[in-house]
Amino acid sequence: MNTVEAVEKAAAALVCLRERRPLVCCLTNTVAANFTANALLALGARPAMVEEPREASELVAGADALLVNVGTLTERQADAMRAAVRAANESGVPWVLDPVACDKLSFRRSFVEEILREHPRLVRGNAGEIGFLRSRGLRLPMTLSTGAVDEIGGIRLANGVELLTKVTATGCAQGGLAAAFCAVEKDPAIAAVAAALAMALAGERAFEHTQRPGTFQSALLDALDELTADDFRRRARFA
Amino acid sequence: MNTVEAVEKAAAALVCLRERRPLVCCLTNTVAANFTANALLALGARPAMVEEPREASELVAGADALLVNVGTLTERQADAMRAAVRAANESGVPWVLDPVACDKLSFRRSFVEEILREHPRLVRGNAGEIGFLRSRGLRLPMTLSTGAVDEIGGIRLANGVELLTKVTATGCAQGGLAAAFCAVEKDPAIAAVAAALAMALAGERAFEHTQRPGTFQSALLDALDELTADDFRRRARFA
Amino acid sequence: MNTVEAVEKAAAALVCLRERRPLVCCLTNTVAANFTANALLALGARPAMVEEPREASELVAGADALLVNVGTLTERQADAMRAAVRAANESGVPWVLDPVACDKLSFRRSFVEEILREHPRLVRGNAGEIGFLRSRGLRLPMTLSTGAVDEIGGIRLANGVELLTKVTATGCAQGGLAAAFCAVEKDPAIAAVAAALAMALAGERAFEHTQRPGTFQSALLDALDELTADDFRRRARFA
Repeated sequence: MNTVEAVEKAAAALVCLRERRPLVCCLTNTVAANFTANALLALGARPAMVEEPREASELVAGADALLVNVGTLTERQADAMRAAVRAANESGVPWVLDPVACDKLSFRRSFVEEILREHPRLVRGNAGEIGFLRSRGLRLPMTLSTGAVDEIGGIRLANGVELLTKVTATGCAQGGLAAAFCAVEKDPAIAAVAAALAMALAGERAFEHTQRPGTFQSALLDALDELTADDFRRRARFA
Repeated sequence: MNTVEAVEKAAAALVCLRERRPLVCCLTNTVAANFTANALLALGARPAMVEEPREASELVAGADALLVNVGTLTERQADAMRAAVRAANESGVPWVLDPVACDKLSFRRSFVEEILREHPRLVRGNAGEIGFLRSRGLRLPMTLSTGAVDEIGGIRLANGVELLTKVTATGCAQGGLAAAFCAVEKDPAIAAVAAALAMALAGERAFEHTQRPGTFQSALLDALDELTADDFRRRARFA
Repeated sequence: MNTVEAVEKAAAALVCLRERRPLVCCLTNTVAANFTANALLALGARPAMVEEPREASELVAGADALLVNVGTLTERQADAMRAAVRAANESGVPWVLDPVACDKLSFRRSFVEEILREHPRLVRGNAGEIGFLRSRGLRLPMTLSTGAVDEIGGIRLANGVELLTKVTATGCAQGGLAAAFCAVEKDPAIAAVAAALAMALAGERAFEHTQRPGTFQSALLDALDELTADDFRRRARFA
């Protein structure tokens, strides 16, 4: 797939997401929950967070996508994630895995290795996390690896601003956006390109308004709300 | 009660709340905790969040009101809520129930049906949740049902802006405001009118500053801080 | 130590913190987690939140400092805190205790009394909490007691604005900053002066931009990012 085609399809996915308003069930960490919900709302999706295992499976069965983010994993939450993933697979709901810090902590590493067998549609992480999973010889699905350059398959996106790393949970929220795009676009590479572009272009737009992290956090949500398919087409840059 | 009288009493409750600064104990969901605390502070109340069952009862016994919001209910949190409600009833502390998504998930539905027997002063939910509880034939106390129009008993308030639905936890925070008003106003209908007006009028004021969700979230807290009893009197509109 | 010397060393600690970017492991309450992470990022440190006991010890062993904040303590979190503190002491990682509301709730009071025996480098709390611990005859390490005047040993700082008390988690975030400063400055009194000055001066700067709590919260993070060692030298005031 060439980059022009990828961007065009990502732009179409954004239009589709705004029309369909997918319900995205999120099992995520306590730091990122609020910002992820606001990022999903700003983009045009409907977030739903849940913690109790039995609620997770019931909610996922009626959702359009699922995010599993292990950023503050507990044993109890791992149970909820197992239940959610099982329900997602039974109901054909696509799910995205964000293996936060799996390269640094062994409890979540073994959980990530276990849950990876359950066929996530996409894995989103920073370059260290994705590189670590590859180095373990694990079979990975499509991946979105983020950093100064975001990589999806052979596609390398150069958008974004460094200030995104000075606000907590922008990466975790991107995982939520990726799940939302998976709800409206079957090809995980396109969904990943759309999620990467959405966060990076919103970051660039927000940076035009402010260069400090507190006001940038608010401006970032404003920019996700303002984002258009034409922004994807005009402003995507490749490395 | 006519609407002019309700608004006048709600305005008096706001003045009283600012003077008395009620301590509002909140057992709420992980997504809304921070924003609810900030909304209560902005309005003029003192929030106190708690999770451990034994702390819940001790804190509630010395609080002025209690909020029970089931948005990310777990078995453990349900135990804390039972303890909190018991302590509230023993100490004569009014409590507000927010039955988030009780129309969609069976675990919290059965918990909501159980805890409803413990005499909440007020139930605050969206029209779907309140309608669902009515359809189950449950005996409900006074309710605040929110949507394009907010309904309290026979009173229909038309204030508010749609952008409030693009920021997570504005409804949950309104439940916190309702608990705070219950601490200073015995009539739950008046407390509910005050909470509905506070969030809706703050939303209208914030919308004058910004039409995007990120900056709107900050502007909303500013507007709650700025709100006056005269705003209630001058700007309340009925459907 | 005189105040000029304390401020000069605090200024040097800020420069050092920005260079070394210490990894600060936080076991904190659910209300403050997001804001604490953002405050640490804005100041120049790297936050890492964790909840599972076995992850806590692994993370702390490789961290530069640890924050233990009991604001929404649960039995499970108390276990994680015990494990984290043990790992900190084994690895020589300094840790800061924030005994939130230990003067009001007995479960966390007994936990605070227990964990105080494990040699925190610093205890940060409001005047009520610190005074309560003193009244119990407990042996305390260096303390940072906050209020209209912040007290560290014999040093009394007069900076800050009252609006800081209208935003939730500014005190909790200050505990995180104190931990970050303990990672780069061995003397806990200097680290405490630095943390007190950072939050108070950022508050003063933010207050120049806005006098309402919602926008103030964002401006506060901007101001932490903007803060310089010269701000410490020029703007510190003593009571």
